[in-house]
Amino acid sequence: MKVLVERIARDGKVLNQAILKVDGFMNHQIDPLLMKQIGEEFAQHFSAVKATKILTAETSGIAPALSTGMAMNLPIVFARKHQPITMGGEPLRQSAPSHTHGGEVELIVSNEYLGQDDKVLIIDDFLSTAKTLKALVALVEASGATLVGIGAVIEKSFEGGRAALGNLKVPVHSLAVIERFDGERIIFKEDKVEAL
Amino acid sequence: MKVLVERIARDGKVLNQAILKVDGFMNHQIDPLLMKQIGEEFAQHFSAVKATKILTAETSGIAPALSTGMAMNLPIVFARKHQPITMGGEPLRQSAPSHTHGGEVELIVSNEYLGQDDKVLIIDDFLSTAKTLKALVALVEASGATLVGIGAVIEKSFEGGRAALGNLKVPVHSLAVIERFDGERIIFKEDKVEAL
Repeated sequence: MKVLVERIARDGKVLNQAILKVDGFMNHQIDPLLMKQIGEEFAQHFSAVKATKILTAETSGIAPALSTGMAMNLPIVFARKHQPITMGGEPLRQSAPSHTHGGEVELIVSNEYLGQDDKVLIIDDFLSTAKTLKALVALVEASGATLVGIGAVIEKSFEGGRAALGNLKVPVHSLAVIERFDGERIIFKEDKVEAL
Repeated sequence: MKVLVERIARDGKVLNQAILKVDGFMNHQIDPLLMKQIGEEFAQHFSAVKATKILTAETSGIAPALSTGMAMNLPIVFARKHQPITMGGEPLRQSAPSHTHGGEVELIVSNEYLGQDDKVLIIDDFLSTAKTLKALVALVEASGATLVGIGAVIEKSFEGGRAALGNLKVPVHSLAVIERFDGERIIFKEDKVEAL
């Protein structure tokens, strides 16, 4: 996604070999037009998978997931990190390590909103080590729903997340793929990458 | 906002006198069409305040703020509850009690994205006791930016938040105003409420 790659190249900051700071347009401040385009791009790419629901994890997944859900007219469920008092019953839970905060976080989804009739498209901000995405995949499996695709806004391919996801037999699509950091320079893969 | 009031009346659940569960369409699962309409309604209402930026708090404020930002083509900043490692420097901080989790939370905004040139429209999911909104107002003041309006999706007028906000001399607008709960019934104020 050319406009995204250009934006990352211009405004992204390499903090260290694991962390890319994109909080000027994605993760703290959000560029509304870019985020709209991100949703439209996912909607177009995943139009054939016949999803019935989008799943993401709070906090930074919400914006791209909502934008995608708006473009596809599908409900969005965001896994929560803490169980609010409004969530009763026995929700589904999965642990995942936090990339930007350190430590473990728990991802929690109410089984009111994810079940065996759902065909789920997972959308998140990063595909890095894929630990959050794997927790989301596990939530989908635990709910009895069917996973139909995974979309990440930015993939850092050198962290091996795509391989770590294993053979899920669903399309995994990233809108911008970073092959490596060369000091403070961001080296992108030629164009988008896709795997089935 | 008729469609919102009808949705709350249909799908909202009164858990106790302080808590309304709306996680089927707003706070855990999001209805994309309703959320789009919420953004458009805020955009229309606040078109005259000449905002340059939308401010909200994670997590549940992100969806209505993003939708509003998309409708107004304005960047959205969401205050974070924890300082991620991508946020350097000395960010602005304010404490606020959590309504649905208990305890205190800190709201943190980088001064990279909020400063004296900004005219800020605050958007959040609830106007209840207004403690989160007051923390957001304090962040705006601390940044040197100008507050130009406050929008809440749902106001529970019986919790006194509007009075607690004090005389801010900006429009405070809610899309659905709940006057009280009568057991499990939700009693709405006749129509929208507005104060300048």
